[in-house]
Amino acid sequence: MKEIVECVPNFSTSDQKMVETVLNEIQKTENAFILDYTYDDYYNRLVVSFVGSKQSVFKAMLNAASKAVELIDMRKHKGQHPRIGAVDVVPFIPVKNVKMEECVELAREFGKTLAEKYGIPVYLYGEAATKPQRKDLDWIRKGDYEQLAEMISKPERKPDFGPSKAHPKAGATITGARKIMAGFNVNLGTANLKVAKKIAKALHAKKGGFSNVKAMAVFIPEKNITQIGMSISDFEKTPLYRVFELLKVEAARYNVPITGSEFCGMAPLKALIDIAAYYLKIDNLPENRVLEMAVHDVVEKADLRPTAGRQQVI
Amino acid sequence: MKEIVECVPNFSTSDQKMVETVLNEIQKTENAFILDYTYDDYYNRLVVSFVGSKQSVFKAMLNAASKAVELIDMRKHKGQHPRIGAVDVVPFIPVKNVKMEECVELAREFGKTLAEKYGIPVYLYGEAATKPQRKDLDWIRKGDYEQLAEMISKPERKPDFGPSKAHPKAGATITGARKIMAGFNVNLGTANLKVAKKIAKALHAKKGGFSNVKAMAVFIPEKNITQIGMSISDFEKTPLYRVFELLKVEAARYNVPITGSEFCGMAPLKALIDIAAYYLKIDNLPENRVLEMAVHDVVEKADLRPTAGRQQVI
Repeated sequence: MKEIVECVPNFSTSDQKMVETVLNEIQKTENAFILDYTYDDYYNRLVVSFVGSKQSVFKAMLNAASKAVELIDMRKHKGQHPRIGAVDVVPFIPVKNVKMEECVELAREFGKTLAEKYGIPVYLYGEAATKPQRKDLDWIRKGDYEQLAEMISKPERKPDFGPSKAHPKAGATITGARKIMAGFNVNLGTANLKVAKKIAKALHAKKGGFSNVKAMAVFIPEKNITQIGMSISDFEKTPLYRVFELLKVEAARYNVPITGSEFCGMAPLKALIDIAAYYLKIDNLPENRVLEMAVHDVVEKADLRPTAGRQQVI
Repeated sequence: MKEIVECVPNFSTSDQKMVETVLNEIQKTENAFILDYTYDDYYNRLVVSFVGSKQSVFKAMLNAASKAVELIDMRKHKGQHPRIGAVDVVPFIPVKNVKMEECVELAREFGKTLAEKYGIPVYLYGEAATKPQRKDLDWIRKGDYEQLAEMISKPERKPDFGPSKAHPKAGATITGARKIMAGFNVNLGTANLKVAKKIAKALHAKKGGFSNVKAMAVFIPEKNITQIGMSISDFEKTPLYRVFELLKVEAARYNVPITGSEFCGMAPLKALIDIAAYYLKIDNLPENRVLEMAVHDVVEKADLRPTAGRQQVI
């Protein structure tokens, strides 16, 4: 496989049976491979990361969406995460030998097909957005599913595909194209959501924080702690170490300890390299100097052209 | 290629022509791939990292060694790095689907062949060592090339292969097997070698430092600074962040700033993950959660079995 697209659909369910059914549609598609999936009751949300060729990713995504539309009923849905539909968000991400424009094209094709097949209103976001405001997922999702019927009738919220009317069971879908982003959650040693919200605010783009960061504070009842959930849309411009250091500064202000953190979804190598480089003052560390990456690259070369293992060095 | 061995030979030359000739022997070998090479006049040393199948790596290494033996004359060699021969050290490293014992076997075979073909005395070290002392490269290299003629006549320094007599032009060779290790250099904002040596001493295993760390201090005339050069033989047991933090502590004691650092050779992914995890308090981050690694793995799978792109998820 020479071209690789990643797709990270968000479905509004955490029902074990539904999750299995949706995942199964992806994994049974030839040349589509699930890298990761997470779901939990609190958010009532399934996030899948899978990769493959353009064609395979499109096919797998359409089949998974069909099942989700069939099984999920938004009228009964409760969850802490913003959402407007059963197939809530579907980003296509260029990973290897694929251009952003090709992912924009994939998103358009997917949105058009979904709208035509099921009568679901579809919005294009990110790099596929048709209007500047629509670049922002949150702008499109304002009002959630509950206010969708009302919001969708406003001229500025007219869908890019499908009817200007919420699908009763499936709501609406947002699809688009974007760069690889980093999801990062930091646990705070406090149950005080007010404090956590203040810390999140300091980081959040729209509230004066870093321009590529969205941050929200949530309370996690099982652990009796709060968590700052972040997505960093361009971690090359706004590296994770910088976000983390500011979070440390703000947490220290309230005497709140940072008890742990985790990547939400896959960890991009470039983000890890930047963290290591910052803290250890490494001057220069391109991805191809990481042993395992370099090995993979040559193996791929060797396997694709098994009879000609030559290269130029000097 | 399903099995991957890495080989990191150290040759006693920095002559541009010789370097090209030696590298050429490796790169023209089918299924052997150079990942990295560095050479400089101060050390007068060429370090190459290349990978391939067991057979390819053996063949490439033998051909490169033959050229080095032909071209390098140790009687004229000057350099700041410890060395006893033209083909000074040749470690074989298991990278993928290869056992350590297979690399030990490769080292034995390589040593035996080199000794028989050129009459060069060969020592086995690391996991291939025949005596406990010989696990340690530095023990074998004691006295450098200059005292080799004398040292080699001692019973405890009898070579594992070849004559108990230094090869006049090529000296002796040390070959063996070891785990992937990390080479890491830290630049200090001081030209004071005495201070740098004190800092290196605090880290060095044999002087009371970390058990998996060798550290030496060198003066770098072009930059008028000193550098701590380290090799960490087991960075899973002795992670880099811990070594770096201690180095910071010791440098602070002498008010010496750390001005930069670099991996010497390839950077192992696990070492980078451990650094990121420590500084950002990440609870758990296995290699297969790194996006690019996961993508490579599935691509490899897909390319090796192009007709069956299936997998089990739940």
